[in-house]
Amino acid sequence: MLKLYIGNKNYSSWSLRPWVLLRQSGIPFQEVVARFDSFDADSQFKATLAGISPTGKVPVLVDGDLTIWDTLAIAEYLAETYPDKQLWPQDKAARARARSVVAEMHSGFAALRGACPMNIEADLAQQGALLWRDRPAVRADVARLVQMWTELLERHGGPMLFGTFTIADAFYAPVCMRLSRYGLPVPKPIAEYIQRVEQLPAMQEWIAAAKAEQDFREFEEPYRLGR
Amino acid sequence: MLKLYIGNKNYSSWSLRPWVLLRQSGIPFQEVVARFDSFDADSQFKATLAGISPTGKVPVLVDGDLTIWDTLAIAEYLAETYPDKQLWPQDKAARARARSVVAEMHSGFAALRGACPMNIEADLAQQGALLWRDRPAVRADVARLVQMWTELLERHGGPMLFGTFTIADAFYAPVCMRLSRYGLPVPKPIAEYIQRVEQLPAMQEWIAAAKAEQDFREFEEPYRLGR
Repeated sequence: MLKLYIGNKNYSSWSLRPWVLLRQSGIPFQEVVARFDSFDADSQFKATLAGISPTGKVPVLVDGDLTIWDTLAIAEYLAETYPDKQLWPQDKAARARARSVVAEMHSGFAALRGACPMNIEADLAQQGALLWRDRPAVRADVARLVQMWTELLERHGGPMLFGTFTIADAFYAPVCMRLSRYGLPVPKPIAEYIQRVEQLPAMQEWIAAAKAEQDFREFEEPYRLGR
Repeated sequence: MLKLYIGNKNYSSWSLRPWVLLRQSGIPFQEVVARFDSFDADSQFKATLAGISPTGKVPVLVDGDLTIWDTLAIAEYLAETYPDKQLWPQDKAARARARSVVAEMHSGFAALRGACPMNIEADLAQQGALLWRDRPAVRADVARLVQMWTELLERHGGPMLFGTFTIADAFYAPVCMRLSRYGLPVPKPIAEYIQRVEQLPAMQEWIAAAKAEQDFREFEEPYRLGR
């Protein structure tokens, strides 16, 4: 069976992407949680991944003796292995656009990602309001997201970015968590899309597990002294 | 015909990737160079891309009325459109590994990319020696590259990372340019791989054009006052 190594569900945005893709698509897999203690060479986290991931990072997918160590490569591997799940849009042009927005997420939105680390259990609305006031780069990232999602929801008619749930929604699911938890202002159709993502059964399962972790890691908590 | 928008050949590492992929594979395309003047909203560069790229960045591939705006999405689109060119390895496990290393490049190696911007015409060996001495993160990025390439060259027997030329070599071609121009120390088999990449006909054509540009852009030149 597929084995997916992930980090803390409350914090690890990159882990969430392939996990929700697998679960929401009904692909069976075994999950291995490498809890974040630290990212130092002698941490339990690095020890769990030693000999598994050449980069020492999560997520990692293991299929028999094959290791795939990046979220985007995992997504492509799953799309290829389970064509009946239609993880990419079936239309070629839509698929090219989906890959463009997914790749844009993979290497972009640095300001939002840096300023608003994912923290599912926390209410960071006050911090979000300060960031919104003071950080033009965060506002610019959100403006690009709003433009992108509006265009896609209008083009494909929703409820997901390309109609049905695809890799694109899985890639932006952690962004939905950030926008929601930091309370960043978005137009109503975008707020509704964020709600629909949060209501996906696989997301509900992830969020419940994230809240149950009750871990507090200072290096993931620029805005809180404790839980 | 396919139309590929790129930046300066001397500087634009992301432009090099799809360009060398297309040219080395013999796929016909028209090139549109958006020279870097600045990245401000009122620059000629942004004006050239207005209405073309939703992110305002290069590279962008245009195929009829379809726009694909990220290097990785472009690579997947080309692999799908030209299956006979075998842009990805044919073996499924090798293809998964190729996508892993390509995705690792797409979002990683931040220290090397930040400290050693691509500058094909320049000899930056002295600067490279200083960076090598003073920046552990640059040495760590190079160590990971050496580990990755050594493993792949041994597994597939060379001359390219997966045997024949694939998207993986196109993605690491700008890294080869950096390692070479900054004179960063690598083991002999890696230095020989870098030389083989530089000797590819498509790379020779790109390098000649880069040297012919004779542009000097201060925002791309942390280490030189002039040409």
